[in-house]
Amino acid sequence: MTGPAAQDSAHPAIARWQGADGEILIGGRTLRQVAREVGRTPFYAYDRGRISDRVAALRAALPEGVRLHYAIKANPMPAVIAHLAPLVDGVDVASAGELARALEAGLDPAEMGFAGPGKTDEELAAAAVAGVLIELESEGEMRRLAAIATERKLHPRVAVRVNPDFRLKGSGMHMGGGPSQFGVDAEAVPALLHSLAELPLQFEGFHIFGGSQNLSAESLVTAEREIAALAIRLAAAAPSPVRYVNIGGGFGIPYFPKDQPLDLAAVGAGLTDVVRDIRSALPEARVVLELGRYIVGEAGLYVCRVIDRKVSRGQVFLVTDGGLHHHLAATGNFGQAIRRNFPVAIGTRFGAPAEETVNVVGCLCTPIDLLADRAALPRAEVGDLVVVFQSGAYGLSASPTAFLGHPPPGEILV
Amino acid sequence: MTGPAAQDSAHPAIARWQGADGEILIGGRTLRQVAREVGRTPFYAYDRGRISDRVAALRAALPEGVRLHYAIKANPMPAVIAHLAPLVDGVDVASAGELARALEAGLDPAEMGFAGPGKTDEELAAAAVAGVLIELESEGEMRRLAAIATERKLHPRVAVRVNPDFRLKGSGMHMGGGPSQFGVDAEAVPALLHSLAELPLQFEGFHIFGGSQNLSAESLVTAEREIAALAIRLAAAAPSPVRYVNIGGGFGIPYFPKDQPLDLAAVGAGLTDVVRDIRSALPEARVVLELGRYIVGEAGLYVCRVIDRKVSRGQVFLVTDGGLHHHLAATGNFGQAIRRNFPVAIGTRFGAPAEETVNVVGCLCTPIDLLADRAALPRAEVGDLVVVFQSGAYGLSASPTAFLGHPPPGEILV
Repeated sequence: MTGPAAQDSAHPAIARWQGADGEILIGGRTLRQVAREVGRTPFYAYDRGRISDRVAALRAALPEGVRLHYAIKANPMPAVIAHLAPLVDGVDVASAGELARALEAGLDPAEMGFAGPGKTDEELAAAAVAGVLIELESEGEMRRLAAIATERKLHPRVAVRVNPDFRLKGSGMHMGGGPSQFGVDAEAVPALLHSLAELPLQFEGFHIFGGSQNLSAESLVTAEREIAALAIRLAAAAPSPVRYVNIGGGFGIPYFPKDQPLDLAAVGAGLTDVVRDIRSALPEARVVLELGRYIVGEAGLYVCRVIDRKVSRGQVFLVTDGGLHHHLAATGNFGQAIRRNFPVAIGTRFGAPAEETVNVVGCLCTPIDLLADRAALPRAEVGDLVVVFQSGAYGLSASPTAFLGHPPPGEILV
Repeated sequence: MTGPAAQDSAHPAIARWQGADGEILIGGRTLRQVAREVGRTPFYAYDRGRISDRVAALRAALPEGVRLHYAIKANPMPAVIAHLAPLVDGVDVASAGELARALEAGLDPAEMGFAGPGKTDEELAAAAVAGVLIELESEGEMRRLAAIATERKLHPRVAVRVNPDFRLKGSGMHMGGGPSQFGVDAEAVPALLHSLAELPLQFEGFHIFGGSQNLSAESLVTAEREIAALAIRLAAAAPSPVRYVNIGGGFGIPYFPKDQPLDLAAVGAGLTDVVRDIRSALPEARVVLELGRYIVGEAGLYVCRVIDRKVSRGQVFLVTDGGLHHHLAATGNFGQAIRRNFPVAIGTRFGAPAEETVNVVGCLCTPIDLLADRAALPRAEVGDLVVVFQSGAYGLSASPTAFLGHPPPGEILV
């Protein structure tokens, strides 16, 4: 048996939360109060104030003239979308389903972008009818949309999603620089724009995205500079003035023991030149920054209950009523090459010193259902509540809730 | 760019399927016929005849006296459960939800086992009332069940799930030999049985499970010999004659290029001694073999449609309307340490020679949505149907269907 896997209550993601009488506070309420309101465990709880605070921090740090979009895919809970609707300048959707949720929340289709490499004809038609900006991923998609536009006598608004010819360093996921299913290769964009000019499509601009989950301000700013230069360069081939430049996002949040929070002030300062350059070269362009995880990720907790406490061959196991079916990412099965622990605490013994090294597991009959591997935690008993931090993005919606036939978790915006 | 990732139409999983006029046949119908019946893509199709054939092959190969159980977690589609109900001797459930589905299918609770490390009080009560065999995972769970039994004046049937003191070699997932959340450590079982004798619980026997997804007949038979010996040894401490020995399962199916199908005849021959030994030492014992993946896994296909065909920097991408949200395992994000391709074919050009090396991707905005990495396939166009084989187990129910707001796939038993 090796030592604790460096689970540390001083993790920045945990240190940002307060407790009272040994319970973590969510939106000013104790964890047990929130659990009573939800009526069951497990559940996800999102802190409304923290989401608002994050948007305010972005507004304070980002240069004037950046329009902030929320990427709904990070957390599509209707209450979260409704809470964010008046706070952001627009949203990005990735499917007809997300488009419908955004419209139901009363958001303005004029301020919606729709990206995604596999849009069906039905989705393209729905987006064209709604009047959202359709971000074209390929020549084939452009031709399909043009055929729909002709048939339905529509003039869809479009931007070209560009697969850049550089790579964002330090990202959790790379999405540019090489061959990709996302967007049109930068070098092929001029020819595409030439064809586009002949089609019944209203060209607005470009969407250039370099990667996601990046914690380095320097890497992000470097990439955004290259994105701006690429957009300006491609604009020379545009059939009409560029009115939209989506510079992506990719701001990361700290998940793992050595992760440090992104230096937002440094990103904001670095973006000043980027935005100035774009607006100087393309004076009609709206500059859009698209963020999902960074807006909601740190505001969310996943909470489950200890059902059993057992010792097997010298190791303590806290068996919970939650697990992989609710929170796939926390078990390391959502695109992570190496499994590492999300920050975890005993939310009903919050602030207590670590007393033992335990494995926190879910209730499923599979060894991959592991929420925390050898974490140093206060001693927990049956009935205590385990909290997994950094769970506000790519949590519930990115999990196989039907697996093994358990009920879905609750979900509450506090 | 490296060469094709050894996708080969001679893979045993593909070679077992027939085509007609260039289309794969499912239950005697062409792929496009099945697609029309489902009414949309993507969908899962399960071949009823192949499920029956697999059960028949097991009956032919296994020694007399082995009772065959279906583990519902592998594929909980109600039509699949109903189809299997008359073919198997019982089922295993892993939650109250699966228990309800099994009861709805008219299965006999006397022939149901319920295992799982995080059973809630509500689940234990439901199982006790239904009269299923509850497989105890820990002393704590035993005490909780006893309290429920006392309060409700019930005498639940129980077995002890044992965490063995050996490890099954060659399994995709190890579930024994070390510390574990599953079962009671073998060395702690005698003391537990001593306590159990004083509680209002009807002891029936043991459940000993060594691992899953094993393709080596030799490893499986070796493990089953050890499981039998352990059950016989532990029976000496039992408070009443052992009437149930669940020897697990773990029979694997070939997913990846070099995988070879399990030699079922060799497993069956090797189990003859195992079953004879158990029945000789424990004459009242039912010997139960519990299989999920092996019964349904090879009978299922996942089918999605090519929405776009694009070339990016020298690589061909087939963008489909399916993906990770429907079939997480095929994208390598379900417990696999290394991503490898499931067997894939163009189901509407079935049997055609490979002409190009392509990436088959899903429709989600994430680079992990990759169904086939550099697979050698016939040239496919928009509208062609991609088939992912070996998709009958741990497919739909193990996938995050809500991710990005796309509709769920169809599901049909043909």
